[in-house]
Amino acid sequence: MSPNLQTAVPSPLQIARKLAETFAQTAAERDERGGTPKAERDALRQSGLLALSIPTRFGGLGASWSETLDVVRELAKVDSSIAHVFGFQHLMLATVRLFSRPEQWQPWFEQTARNNWFWGNALNPLDTRTVVKKYDGWREFSGKKSFCSGASDSEMLIASAVDESAGGKLLIAAIPSGRTGITLHGDWDNMGQRQTDSGSATFERVRVEESELLLDPGPLSTPFACLRPLIAQLHFAHIFLGIAEGAFEEARQYTLKEGRPWFTSKARHVSEDPYIIRHYGEFWVGLESVRALVERAAAQLDEAWRKEHNLGSEERAQLALSIATAKVAASRTGLDLCSRLFEVTGARATHASLRFDRYWRNLRTQTLHDPVDYKIHELGDWALNQTRPTPTFYS
Amino acid sequence: MSPNLQTAVPSPLQIARKLAETFAQTAAERDERGGTPKAERDALRQSGLLALSIPTRFGGLGASWSETLDVVRELAKVDSSIAHVFGFQHLMLATVRLFSRPEQWQPWFEQTARNNWFWGNALNPLDTRTVVKKYDGWREFSGKKSFCSGASDSEMLIASAVDESAGGKLLIAAIPSGRTGITLHGDWDNMGQRQTDSGSATFERVRVEESELLLDPGPLSTPFACLRPLIAQLHFAHIFLGIAEGAFEEARQYTLKEGRPWFTSKARHVSEDPYIIRHYGEFWVGLESVRALVERAAAQLDEAWRKEHNLGSEERAQLALSIATAKVAASRTGLDLCSRLFEVTGARATHASLRFDRYWRNLRTQTLHDPVDYKIHELGDWALNQTRPTPTFYS
Amino acid sequence: MSPNLQTAVPSPLQIARKLAETFAQTAAERDERGGTPKAERDALRQSGLLALSIPTRFGGLGASWSETLDVVRELAKVDSSIAHVFGFQHLMLATVRLFSRPEQWQPWFEQTARNNWFWGNALNPLDTRTVVKKYDGWREFSGKKSFCSGASDSEMLIASAVDESAGGKLLIAAIPSGRTGITLHGDWDNMGQRQTDSGSATFERVRVEESELLLDPGPLSTPFACLRPLIAQLHFAHIFLGIAEGAFEEARQYTLKEGRPWFTSKARHVSEDPYIIRHYGEFWVGLESVRALVERAAAQLDEAWRKEHNLGSEERAQLALSIATAKVAASRTGLDLCSRLFEVTGARATHASLRFDRYWRNLRTQTLHDPVDYKIHELGDWALNQTRPTPTFYS
Amino acid sequence: MSPNLQTAVPSPLQIARKLAETFAQTAAERDERGGTPKAERDALRQSGLLALSIPTRFGGLGASWSETLDVVRELAKVDSSIAHVFGFQHLMLATVRLFSRPEQWQPWFEQTARNNWFWGNALNPLDTRTVVKKYDGWREFSGKKSFCSGASDSEMLIASAVDESAGGKLLIAAIPSGRTGITLHGDWDNMGQRQTDSGSATFERVRVEESELLLDPGPLSTPFACLRPLIAQLHFAHIFLGIAEGAFEEARQYTLKEGRPWFTSKARHVSEDPYIIRHYGEFWVGLESVRALVERAAAQLDEAWRKEHNLGSEERAQLALSIATAKVAASRTGLDLCSRLFEVTGARATHASLRFDRYWRNLRTQTLHDPVDYKIHELGDWALNQTRPTPTFYS
Repeated sequence: MSPNLQTAVPSPLQIARKLAETFAQTAAERDERGGTPKAERDALRQSGLLALSIPTRFGGLGASWSETLDVVRELAKVDSSIAHVFGFQHLMLATVRLFSRPEQWQPWFEQTARNNWFWGNALNPLDTRTVVKKYDGWREFSGKKSFCSGASDSEMLIASAVDESAGGKLLIAAIPSGRTGITLHGDWDNMGQRQTDSGSATFERVRVEESELLLDPGPLSTPFACLRPLIAQLHFAHIFLGIAEGAFEEARQYTLKEGRPWFTSKARHVSEDPYIIRHYGEFWVGLESVRALVERAAAQLDEAWRKEHNLGSEERAQLALSIATAKVAASRTGLDLCSRLFEVTGARATHASLRFDRYWRNLRTQTLHDPVDYKIHELGDWALNQTRPTPTFYS
Repeated sequence: MSPNLQTAVPSPLQIARKLAETFAQTAAERDERGGTPKAERDALRQSGLLALSIPTRFGGLGASWSETLDVVRELAKVDSSIAHVFGFQHLMLATVRLFSRPEQWQPWFEQTARNNWFWGNALNPLDTRTVVKKYDGWREFSGKKSFCSGASDSEMLIASAVDESAGGKLLIAAIPSGRTGITLHGDWDNMGQRQTDSGSATFERVRVEESELLLDPGPLSTPFACLRPLIAQLHFAHIFLGIAEGAFEEARQYTLKEGRPWFTSKARHVSEDPYIIRHYGEFWVGLESVRALVERAAAQLDEAWRKEHNLGSEERAQLALSIATAKVAASRTGLDLCSRLFEVTGARATHASLRFDRYWRNLRTQTLHDPVDYKIHELGDWALNQTRPTPTFYS
Repeated sequence: MSPNLQTAVPSPLQIARKLAETFAQTAAERDERGGTPKAERDALRQSGLLALSIPTRFGGLGASWSETLDVVRELAKVDSSIAHVFGFQHLMLATVRLFSRPEQWQPWFEQTARNNWFWGNALNPLDTRTVVKKYDGWREFSGKKSFCSGASDSEMLIASAVDESAGGKLLIAAIPSGRTGITLHGDWDNMGQRQTDSGSATFERVRVEESELLLDPGPLSTPFACLRPLIAQLHFAHIFLGIAEGAFEEARQYTLKEGRPWFTSKARHVSEDPYIIRHYGEFWVGLESVRALVERAAAQLDEAWRKEHNLGSEERAQLALSIATAKVAASRTGLDLCSRLFEVTGARATHASLRFDRYWRNLRTQTLHDPVDYKIHELGDWALNQTRPTPTFYS
Repeated sequence: MSPNLQTAVPSPLQIARKLAETFAQTAAERDERGGTPKAERDALRQSGLLALSIPTRFGGLGASWSETLDVVRELAKVDSSIAHVFGFQHLMLATVRLFSRPEQWQPWFEQTARNNWFWGNALNPLDTRTVVKKYDGWREFSGKKSFCSGASDSEMLIASAVDESAGGKLLIAAIPSGRTGITLHGDWDNMGQRQTDSGSATFERVRVEESELLLDPGPLSTPFACLRPLIAQLHFAHIFLGIAEGAFEEARQYTLKEGRPWFTSKARHVSEDPYIIRHYGEFWVGLESVRALVERAAAQLDEAWRKEHNLGSEERAQLALSIATAKVAASRTGLDLCSRLFEVTGARATHASLRFDRYWRNLRTQTLHDPVDYKIHELGDWALNQTRPTPTFYS
């Protein structure tokens, strides 16, 4: 984005902050309610931010990944469900960008920017219940799919199916969410990330045109195409960091406004209590470590993205390691902070109306996307054996 | 209890296990609902366990503190709200036993055993809004009180009020819960321990007879009377341990029945995955450490209790340290386990219907009763300076 | 031991404390020097404690394992090298007791008690370089052996060799240390446990009589015989705990006598500094946890030992789990304390003359006897799968 | 440095790597020996690196702080004693640069570059035993000073004394190390950082000229002058990181070359053992976090340094927080790694000849320079209360 634009019109981050302010007012209540945050999704549509990562020549805001993920993190501070589907919007766009031909993804980009399309996810590669049948000139998807984040109230869907005739190969397609045969069950009712609509979908003989299949270059084909899972992973790290930063800020306000020193403390104000201060000091060290790692990884992703087809597998591997490191650190630091925040706010901060537990519930839920143990294993295999991470949908 | 009785009739622990089985079936649903677990409280009444700690000569089951707290822990494995009000029943009984004259507490004990009275708590010494007015032969309590666990649906109440005419001295009384002027607001709606009814009460010119005041020897007067806060603290340690043991067992069943190894794991079954096994190994070390500390402290409490007025302040201090240590360890180990349990159960275990998050929510809420930082401070002051803990309502 | 004896003569623990006082005076210097602590070994000989675990009917002091290991722990507080060889003395005696026939071990017990024999270790089952050759009525051991703790300056040796003719079976023998062909290299020069003489030995065609072979019932044959590795493991836990307790006490004395509050601390005396107090509080929680686990395991070992051949494999398994838990906790708590002790003593406490680093060096060295990772694995396999530990020389 | 020079001649980092290779060969032996590493100090003199941070116009290499501290870190990987005195060389140069007038520091810079002077430290502001006496046109320093790192074998000394006539004000001077009255006791004999010569000095009526006093602008006078303690703190963070990186690399080589899987491991090679890999994964996350924080702080220091007298106190405060965060993280991560390294190398890695314990000893010693507890307190006071760190010699 040119600096001129930034002064003339609000920057994406400024827009996001404005939205976040509004979302914050209802975040606790919506956490309780669950379901689709329709008003908030529409506000995102109207904000223009659904086209944030789309290059300006296709009508988008042309933001880099650093800028895009900063918006994700900003939203996650107050509402990590919305942050998640918003980040997945851009992950879905990256998916068509990386796996399909320009004559496919360019129109999708243009239409998304023009119509403020929301993209949903029905790709889960570990759920192999949806299968594909081949017809002349088209395919048919049938079966179930779990964890379809953001599929409800979306205009487009990234869906996958197993092609058993091709040895279980994963076929990925971009299709209108409203196509005949697609049922989104709205059955997401989990302890956290309650408004991500990450429920299940059923495909009943859904027709998929050849031109909707992401076959060229296809998933995980080139180092550049292999950026897709890395964007997903770094998106998670930003969500985790945003949740932790939001929890920190909420705790801080509560300590300062509502906290009282324990009756045996020598401090007159809780803000002077050495053990309260110590917790905040440790929160700070944790948050700063994650911020440094996440921001470094985002800058590296921008660089890799710019290289496009010149991106080498070694550079892609180094990026994968950076992102995995950031995600592990964000996961651990965040969980610690979101649980410990109650030690700086006290018993009264457990009142249900505050819903301070939602930080831990959201983070705990989202950090289970893929196991941190195997991320550490991946990093250890590099650290000890210099084995590069094998590109998969999770690495 | 005589060994004969144990073979003839079910032991208290066996009764508790039976109750726990029933409570377990609705625990998740009742966690969602909150409010007073009326049916479960009535089941406790019918079980006879409300008289568990009452000596047999007053019609009770004559259980030691070890036995009584083992029942608390057993209930906490499946429902820590019920475990809490059940433990507080016996803490309230200990309160009248320790702070009043035999001609006061003995009839209360007898009536409790005979009528299966439930005792509730309205004592919170840090909430000084309820004040006392002195009249000839009686007193009047007026004001508000927070955190009144188990007060709803109780027959008797331990209430406290500040006597401003006596320099802010705390007066404690045992009164019928239904007495004119007492309103229990049923306003407990917190993120955890949702069926403990730990809401607020209002006292509007509530008449309290002299014979209902616990003045002789009065609160925290002798080393023996000073066992009261220690029983409370050890009760918490048992709750924490029970929650952690319940979480462990639920996780274990889920891992074995529902778990699948991550797709890059070399294990065929999740039960052979080295990182899953490692988590369980660390859970085990944590649980065993807490079990050893909690059981040792309970045995020491039994011994101190038996000494009655011969209990010395040094022995009371050593017990206080044992109990504080157990509580700190139970708090930390439990929080770690209840958050980490998701790493051995995975993303699908976050489904709301399972309510696995309730272990963490319950423990997180209950562990805030008094700050762990100041328990560690107390232990450190002993470890470094050999300063004994000063008896208060929290130490 | 009868109570009468305890009042009349000093108890073993009192004797050990007296010895420990003396050993403490030179422990730092001897840590620097390394080599064989000849004077201290002779003091142990004269103290009668080499017969501590030998039943009174064979001339020993008849101590239980709890008592014996308490002495190990007491010595470890000031000198963990001596504690180690002293504990191994009793492990070697247990080895002959458990693996050989009464007509073998009884005379060895009697001679040990009568002559204050020191037993050394040359058993390391993972070092398979020493092999056995069978002759008519005798065997010949030849080869090298590493980690031969306490072999130098010993009267008797437990040695092992691989019998390649019997499929690599481990043969164990009790032989005089001075027998022709045995060379102890005195080559132990490690960063910790510097006076354990855990160097290497060479066997050059060493003649071993049939009557010296521990074949009936032989190693790891019955549940009772399988107590041998458990005694070793619990011995280690006592060493670890003793080191941590010694470090704690040394730190405490130093803080109180030499410590000064940091210039930005509000405390007038370092003993009032909240962060210093916090460290001590955490040390206390750690030490108490380990003490509870170690003492519980020792009591269980005593019970198992008393059962002799009636000991079942299930009870042996439960004991193995208790001991493994205690060892893991002792290892972790101790390492944390021995490294953190400098945060309560400060920069000047790094002076070489104090050799405060020896606590960490000793513990770090000794905790590597067998990997804590695989102890946790063992515990996890029990906790998750209820798989009992397979008896080996390490479990 | 111009890019041309970098291609024509070896870069400072290349020179440092070469030196490090040589130093590595004797590092273990010199750790044992202690004392002054004369040959290595002379090699540093000959390398030209003593003028590394001196601007080219004064004959130096003109390196930024990032570059200078990268050399410190590079040396610390193999020899943290030498790294420390080398970093202090540049801290002493920064001291005269920041606290004195150009006509003072410029000639010192030129002479240092020309003659490869080594600067030592005798400034310890917490040791107030050296006092100053004022004479007409000169002063006299008398008394003792502890922790005089790098003073032995130095050409110049930064010394401090308390001016009791000015209310205990600290006077700092730059004087030739060989001046009459200065005795360096060579009495540093500590458990770590054994070749830093951080022993004591005595000043016996040492004459100090007015022109040698660093009075204008003087210590901690302006935000720019207040960079001095921040350079010291960031220097420490680089040392800590370098030690941890060196330990990691040494462990890695040892694991790969010498490691064997535990006999119950399913891995054929230790490099495939899941628990070994896990440790390396965690090392990696730790190291990467510290690298990101340290490198970010160094870039911020470069920026602050370039601003000179335009540096504002707010920017200085933010830099102080960045550096404190990096130092805390480096301290904790490093201590964990240097102790845990033995769990990936095993019992045989404790052999004294390897001296692998020196990583922990060096780091443990150096991390005690000022207490990490009070760094966390400082960060907590910022995080909670937005209180900026007060500039002192430690913040």
